[in-house]
Amino acid sequence: MTRLMATLNSHYLKLKAGYLFPEIGRRVKSFTDSNPKAAARLIRCGIGDVTEPLPAAVRAAMHTAVDEMGTNEGFHGYGPEQGYEFLRSAIAQGDYRDRGLEVADDEIFISDGSKCDGGNILDILGSENRIAVMDPVYPVYVDTNVMAGHTGEANEAGAYEGILYLECNAENGFVPAIPKEKADIIYLCFPNNPTGAVATRKQLADWVAYAQKHGSILLYDAAYEAYISDSSIPHSIYEIPGARECAVEFRSFSKNGGFTGTRCAFTVVPKGLTALSSTGNRLPIHPLWHRRFTTKFNGVSYVTQRGAAALYSPQGRSEVAALIAHYMENAMILREAVAASGLKVFGGVNAPYIWVKGPEGVTSWQIFDRMLTQAHIVVTPGSGFGRAGEGYFRISAFNSREKALEAAARLKALVW
Amino acid sequence: MTRLMATLNSHYLKLKAGYLFPEIGRRVKSFTDSNPKAAARLIRCGIGDVTEPLPAAVRAAMHTAVDEMGTNEGFHGYGPEQGYEFLRSAIAQGDYRDRGLEVADDEIFISDGSKCDGGNILDILGSENRIAVMDPVYPVYVDTNVMAGHTGEANEAGAYEGILYLECNAENGFVPAIPKEKADIIYLCFPNNPTGAVATRKQLADWVAYAQKHGSILLYDAAYEAYISDSSIPHSIYEIPGARECAVEFRSFSKNGGFTGTRCAFTVVPKGLTALSSTGNRLPIHPLWHRRFTTKFNGVSYVTQRGAAALYSPQGRSEVAALIAHYMENAMILREAVAASGLKVFGGVNAPYIWVKGPEGVTSWQIFDRMLTQAHIVVTPGSGFGRAGEGYFRISAFNSREKALEAAARLKALVW
Repeated sequence: MTRLMATLNSHYLKLKAGYLFPEIGRRVKSFTDSNPKAAARLIRCGIGDVTEPLPAAVRAAMHTAVDEMGTNEGFHGYGPEQGYEFLRSAIAQGDYRDRGLEVADDEIFISDGSKCDGGNILDILGSENRIAVMDPVYPVYVDTNVMAGHTGEANEAGAYEGILYLECNAENGFVPAIPKEKADIIYLCFPNNPTGAVATRKQLADWVAYAQKHGSILLYDAAYEAYISDSSIPHSIYEIPGARECAVEFRSFSKNGGFTGTRCAFTVVPKGLTALSSTGNRLPIHPLWHRRFTTKFNGVSYVTQRGAAALYSPQGRSEVAALIAHYMENAMILREAVAASGLKVFGGVNAPYIWVKGPEGVTSWQIFDRMLTQAHIVVTPGSGFGRAGEGYFRISAFNSREKALEAAARLKALVW
Repeated sequence: MTRLMATLNSHYLKLKAGYLFPEIGRRVKSFTDSNPKAAARLIRCGIGDVTEPLPAAVRAAMHTAVDEMGTNEGFHGYGPEQGYEFLRSAIAQGDYRDRGLEVADDEIFISDGSKCDGGNILDILGSENRIAVMDPVYPVYVDTNVMAGHTGEANEAGAYEGILYLECNAENGFVPAIPKEKADIIYLCFPNNPTGAVATRKQLADWVAYAQKHGSILLYDAAYEAYISDSSIPHSIYEIPGARECAVEFRSFSKNGGFTGTRCAFTVVPKGLTALSSTGNRLPIHPLWHRRFTTKFNGVSYVTQRGAAALYSPQGRSEVAALIAHYMENAMILREAVAASGLKVFGGVNAPYIWVKGPEGVTSWQIFDRMLTQAHIVVTPGSGFGRAGEGYFRISAFNSREKALEAAARLKALVW
C-alpha cells in the first residue's frame, strides 16, 4: 500500500468531546465572562483540587533541597528513574510494612502522578486484554484505553464498544457486583472517585478471588486512602491475601500532602504479579514496568522527592492529618447542607467527595448549569463519569472552611 | 480464543539486554566493588549528566515559589497540563520569536523531560509508519518504537527489523545522507548525541524537502542547541522554511540550565503539522498532542516551572552562558588530550560530547573496560548507540574543571 503521508493514531478520533474538566472550564468561563458580578462570588466545588497550603514540613525539605542543588557537593543530576531510595523505603515502610503488609522498596515506583501511571501502565500490558471499569468512572481509565486502541467506537450514551462497564448504583452501594463475564484488567478505585464509596474487606476479597480465578489483573487506585475514617475498611488492596499475585496499586501525594501542583505519586508493582506472553509464558510484569521507567521516564525532581519524603516525618504526618481533618469537616458540612435541601446524598464519610442524586428527570448537565447560574457553585456533572452517573452530581470538599460554609448556605437555600 | 490469563506487551521481550546506561552502571559497580581504591579516583565521563550547581536565578525563583505554596493566596494546585502561560510565552518569545521564528505560545508544551516526550509522541502517531533513525542513535528513539510494536526482532548486530537505520560515519561527517527509501517518521538530533556533529542549514533544508516530498514528520531533538558555537549552524529546525508543516521540535532545560535532576523540558508542535487519519483525512496533530497532555499528564510542578522561567531572566541567561562556557572549555581540554594520544576525535566544538575512534580492531566495550580498569575513567561505548558506533566511544564534557583536567592527563598518558 502506498500512503500519501505519515499517519496519526486514529483511535484518538473516537474520543468524545473534551475531557470532562476542560469542558467544565469552558462552561464556567463562558458564564463568568458574561456575568462578571457572579464571577466574583463563584465557589468551585468541581475539580478535585486541594486548596490548603503545602505542609510546612514539605516546604522546609524543599528549601533545603533547593539549597543543596546550589552546591557542588549537594547537586543532584539524573536520579534513579524509579525514584530515590530514601523515598521508596519511606513509602514501603510507612505505608505498608508498618501496617504488616509485605511490600519491598524496589516494588515502589515514584512518578509525577497517578494520572500518568494509570495511563502508562497500559504500555506494558497486551492489547488483547478485556478491560472492565466501574461506571461511573474516573474518565482517564476509559480514555487511555480508547487512545491505546483497546475499544471500538462509543455509542450514543458514551459507552465504548469492548469495555465492560460495571454498574455502580445506590442499590449496590456503588460497589459493583462481581461480573459473570471474564475481564482481564479491572480498574477499581476505593475510596471512589466520584461516588465516595468504599469497599469492605469482603468485597475486595471477592475481587481478588475473581482475579485469581480468571488470571486477571486488578488496577487498584487508592489515591484517596488517607480519607478512610472507618477502621474496618482496607487502605490497601494488599490487605487482602493473594493480592500480591494479581494487583497493582496506585497511590498519590496529591490528596493527602496537597501535591496536586507539586506532582508526586507512586505505583506498587509486586514481583509476584505475572501475565502471559505471546508465546504462552507466564512472566512477571515488574521487569517490564522497570524497563518502561528507565526508557521513557527520567524520575521525579529531586527537590520534589525530598518534599514527599518529609510527609513521612512526624511533623509531616501530623500536618497531613490536619489537612485530612480540615477537608473531612468540610465534607460533613456540605453533606448535611445537601441532605437538608431534600436531595439524597452518598459518600463524604470516607472520601472527600459527596455524591448527590438530583431531582427525578433532571440531567447532570442541567443540574450543573443550574448550580452555576443560580447558586454560583461549580459542581461536577455525574454523567461526565459515565452513563450510570446520569442524574447525579459530585461536590468536592476541597475548599477553605469559609467557602465550604458559604457553599453550604447556598445549597440549603436552593429550591429543587 | 480462551486465554489463561491477562497478557503483557510481548514487544518488550524483543528489547536487547539492559538499556545502555544501567548496563554501564552495573559494570562500574562490579569494578568498584572489587577495587575500592580505584573507586576513589574514578572519573565519570559516561552518562551525559551535568555536574555544576543549579543557577542562582533558578534557585531564587524556586525558593519564592515554595514560599508561595505555603500561603492560601499563593498556593498552586493543578495547573494547566500543557504548562503555565508564563513559561510557555517566555519560551516562545525567548527561543523563537526573538530570533525571528514563528512559534505561538500554545504550540509549546511543557513536560518533565525530552526523554518522556520522545517516547510519548509515538502515542499520537499511527502504528503503520516507517521509522528512520540515525545510527549511532540515542537508544530511547529505538527502544520506544520496539515497545510500541513498530519493529520486528533485533538481528545479531542489535538492529531491529522494520527500522531504517541512517548510517553516520566519519565520511559523511556523522550527518546521514538523504535516503532513497521513504520513511514516515525520521528522528534527527543536532547537535548530535552521541557524535557531537551538527547539521548545516543546507543539510537540514534537504531533510525538510525530503519530508515535504514524502509527507514525513521530522522529530527534531535540539536538546543541545545551547552548545552551538558556530554562528552559521541553525539552533532550531524552524529556521528552515517549511519546517512548521513537517517538524516537531524537542528541547530541554537539562543541558543548558542544569535541570537533569530538576526535570523540565518542552516540545513544539506547530498547528500546521498534519498527518493522515485511517479514513484518509489530513488532520493536524496538535489537538491530539493536546488531548494526550490533558488525559495522560498533569503538568510539571509549579515550583519547577517558576525555576525554568528564571532561565529567561537576564541573570538566568548570563548564568546559562557561564555554564555552557564552562562545559565547552572542558570539551576543548578533553578533545586536545585525546587527539594528543593519537586517536581520531570528532565533536566537542558545537556539543558537549567528544566522539572518538578507538584503535583499529578494538570493540567499544573493550575500550570501555580498558578505560575503566586502567585509567579509571568511565566513557560510553559507541556500540551502545548502534552498529555504526562500534569501535567508537563517547566522552562527556560534563564535569568539574578539576576532573576534566585530571581525566585529560590520564587520557594523554594512555598507550593504545
